Amino acid sequence: MRVGNKYIAIVNQKVAEELDLRAADRVDLKIGRRDLTAILDISEQKELGDNEVGLFAETWDKLKVKRGDRITVKIAPKPEGDKYIKKKLEGHELSADEFDTIIKEVVDDDLSDIEMTYFVSACFCNGLSDDETADLTRAIVKHGDQLKFHHKIVMDKHCIGGVPGNRTTMLVVPMITSLGYTMPKTSSRAITSPAGTADTMEVIANVVNDAKKLQKIAKKVGGFITWGGGVDLAAADDKLIRVRYPLKLDPEGMLLASIMAKKHSVSANNVIIDIPMGEQGKVKDKKAANHLKKRFLTIAKLLGMKMKVVITSADQPIGNGIGPVLEVEDILKVLKNDPDAPKDLRKKAIMLVSELLYLSPDYKLKSSAKRAAKKTLKSGKAYEQFMKIVKAQGEKKVPPIGEFKMVVKANKPGKVQKIQNKFIATIARQAGAPKDPGAGVVINAKLGDKVKKGSTLFTVYFENDDRMKYVKELKPVKAYTIN
Amino acid sequence: MRVGNKYIAIVNQKVAEELDLRAADRVDLKIGRRDLTAILDISEQKELGDNEVGLFAETWDKLKVKRGDRITVKIAPKPEGDKYIKKKLEGHELSADEFDTIIKEVVDDDLSDIEMTYFVSACFCNGLSDDETADLTRAIVKHGDQLKFHHKIVMDKHCIGGVPGNRTTMLVVPMITSLGYTMPKTSSRAITSPAGTADTMEVIANVVNDAKKLQKIAKKVGGFITWGGGVDLAAADDKLIRVRYPLKLDPEGMLLASIMAKKHSVSANNVIIDIPMGEQGKVKDKKAANHLKKRFLTIAKLLGMKMKVVITSADQPIGNGIGPVLEVEDILKVLKNDPDAPKDLRKKAIMLVSELLYLSPDYKLKSSAKRAAKKTLKSGKAYEQFMKIVKAQGEKKVPPIGEFKMVVKANKPGKVQKIQNKFIATIARQAGAPKDPGAGVVINAKLGDKVKKGSTLFTVYFENDDRMKYVKELKPVKAYTIN
Repeated sequence: MRVGNKYIAIVNQKVAEELDLRAADRVDLKIGRRDLTAILDISEQKELGDNEVGLFAETWDKLKVKRGDRITVKIAPKPEGDKYIKKKLEGHELSADEFDTIIKEVVDDDLSDIEMTYFVSACFCNGLSDDETADLTRAIVKHGDQLKFHHKIVMDKHCIGGVPGNRTTMLVVPMITSLGYTMPKTSSRAITSPAGTADTMEVIANVVNDAKKLQKIAKKVGGFITWGGGVDLAAADDKLIRVRYPLKLDPEGMLLASIMAKKHSVSANNVIIDIPMGEQGKVKDKKAANHLKKRFLTIAKLLGMKMKVVITSADQPIGNGIGPVLEVEDILKVLKNDPDAPKDLRKKAIMLVSELLYLSPDYKLKSSAKRAAKKTLKSGKAYEQFMKIVKAQGEKKVPPIGEFKMVVKANKPGKVQKIQNKFIATIARQAGAPKDPGAGVVINAKLGDKVKKGSTLFTVYFENDDRMKYVKELKPVKAYTIN
Repeated sequence: MRVGNKYIAIVNQKVAEELDLRAADRVDLKIGRRDLTAILDISEQKELGDNEVGLFAETWDKLKVKRGDRITVKIAPKPEGDKYIKKKLEGHELSADEFDTIIKEVVDDDLSDIEMTYFVSACFCNGLSDDETADLTRAIVKHGDQLKFHHKIVMDKHCIGGVPGNRTTMLVVPMITSLGYTMPKTSSRAITSPAGTADTMEVIANVVNDAKKLQKIAKKVGGFITWGGGVDLAAADDKLIRVRYPLKLDPEGMLLASIMAKKHSVSANNVIIDIPMGEQGKVKDKKAANHLKKRFLTIAKLLGMKMKVVITSADQPIGNGIGPVLEVEDILKVLKNDPDAPKDLRKKAIMLVSELLYLSPDYKLKSSAKRAAKKTLKSGKAYEQFMKIVKAQGEKKVPPIGEFKMVVKANKPGKVQKIQNKFIATIARQAGAPKDPGAGVVINAKLGDKVKKGSTLFTVYFENDDRMKYVKELKPVKAYTIN
């Protein structure tokens, strides 16, 4: 066991005083020729004698300790990063080398939770300039796994999130790779939402792959859609997220660096960023969206990356299904040109693909890029390509949609004025998504639709009917405003 | 064992996923009717089964667990303070109630190291207004022990430190209390210096006393000089210092609140603050000193405290001795009107006492306050009073001065232009102070003194002659600039 990300050694109060050590000091532990740096804790209990050091199993194993071994405890120097973290807290800009030192120490587990928290705070309170963000990005990329490709053009996309059902990645990747480009896409799992792209992809294909395997898949079929957590791209990021979690702190510069690092570490050089905007979105208005857009473009330039930023609507879910299996159904319908395929999802995917193609030197006209995007869908080439990717990653049998359902109906006639995304997401999550892959919500009425009293607004699916009562308690009909 | 200040519970990765728990989440542990909130950690090792929770001894004892007991683990709400800490990180001012909530949770061990670190960062980066500082002070006082006196006037002093040998407290307290005032003084031990007032007092009297005992001593002899760490005044402070330590972070508002809380919690209402200023001091110049002075005065007013702030010189050590026993020798010489008593220490003590007396309504003229200060020294009343305090706290036999000495001589003739305080402190500490109470430095030549080649500049005393080589390596003569 390690606590947080550090090896811990414990001595009693008396020993600490004699050695002039304080809690949170670093100590070198030495047994014979084996040594290890640990964070010191001081026990107030009587369990440790004056010549004893307490170690947890993980430290014990790492040092190959045998009971009764003689151990030397000595104060160890502080990590170099400490002074740069303090410098940043004091409001100064950091250099590329300084970020590099901090990030190397984060990845090597040389920084304690307290030190990492100070780093996050410093970035949050004092912000990161564009140069700093680019330097932080490079440091994160350097101290993590990287994928390299021989192709000149490597495409990628990122959506800053917040819109339920917005599963465009699973369309964009096959469409782009079907046209001969490389697109190595890593995605996240849901944290508080009913599904992340990795959760949805996982119902049809394996998404846990290491860097070596991913490189092989990309070579074979041009791309993949995998879980970022299964590979150590941007390793520092995961460590920092640990200390960001308790306060859910998203320092803008750190967020940008984290996104850019994930693109940069797969060698992406043509990238599209989707910023859903609206009062329900993570980005509330045009001003905030433009600010973010500008920052993305500046940092991309500093990193030598071609980038297009599109600002889209966050006003309602995209597609019909919300929840892993329901979303896969939507995607397959679009890829198979099913007449029931959700039009908004199809349209958004075509827009993103056109913009990405137009970013490359191969398409001089936006109209020809759009034609190519539509064609690969319509011809079935994108579907074929999707299945190739699925097979390369390891195909899985898609589980059935949840067998229990609850139909939520309009309680008066009128026009759909508002759909509360977060509420819909909460309903889908309470229904069991993403843990129950077949659970979730299907949207039956979209913004602007006219409904009668009793018309179906949306349908909630469950694998486990015990959960129906939780959803009922939420009063799901309130997710819609009809007037 | 607790890690940091929290109870810890550990589950394996699979259990964490099933319960939708993340590292650093709070969990309620329940066994029968006993429950406890712990911070969750997730083990990557195989040591825990899917139905097991790992607990440290302290948690185990607290919950009165028996091996094999059935335990319920449930996610617990986040502490309320989190949202105020985030608010402060975002740059907003906090209200009195919000500080109160945070400090209560700090004292109750409801906040993790990560959360406390965010709080310190927020105060450091965004600063605390005077109102906020006063509110934070009140919260710290409220959630700690307090001493109450029936006397109308309770005096106190504080020096922001940084000057070796500056042991005025041990003169001011007996002088003031000999004149019939109450002066309950808590002091600190050395952290990186060769002696704190508590270390020096400790060679002649016991300094570890609880609030009840201290109240009794003050009632009997009017005051005390004790170690602040022995009593739970300003308890929150000690907890926050733990997370401030790794980066040695001193947010100004937090520092002010910490000082003021220590005065306020002993009911002090007439307080003198000593700010040593100079290029070697903690406060470098007039501007910084005046800024601090103004803040002290404003916050004192908000707390209903009469205050005088004096700006003194940080250019050289005060008194001759540096190190616990050597400093006690100086103090006893001043109190006994020894002709060898260091004049600068005597003069500074008289100045501080005069200013404190003049602050009270009892002295209308500064000149009469000064006369009273001098008289209590000269008459031997202050010495008598000092011994009363020593006896009330528990007298100890003063250990001898270290038996080994090293005389550091001028290597050229001239005038003493500069004495490097920090270097002198390092020498005294390397000589063994404060752990070896008889070790330290005696200053033989002060600023402006004319010296010949070979004149003694200062003498280093050791209890242990092994340490002489370390001091030699430092090239101690460099502590003086002679020209």
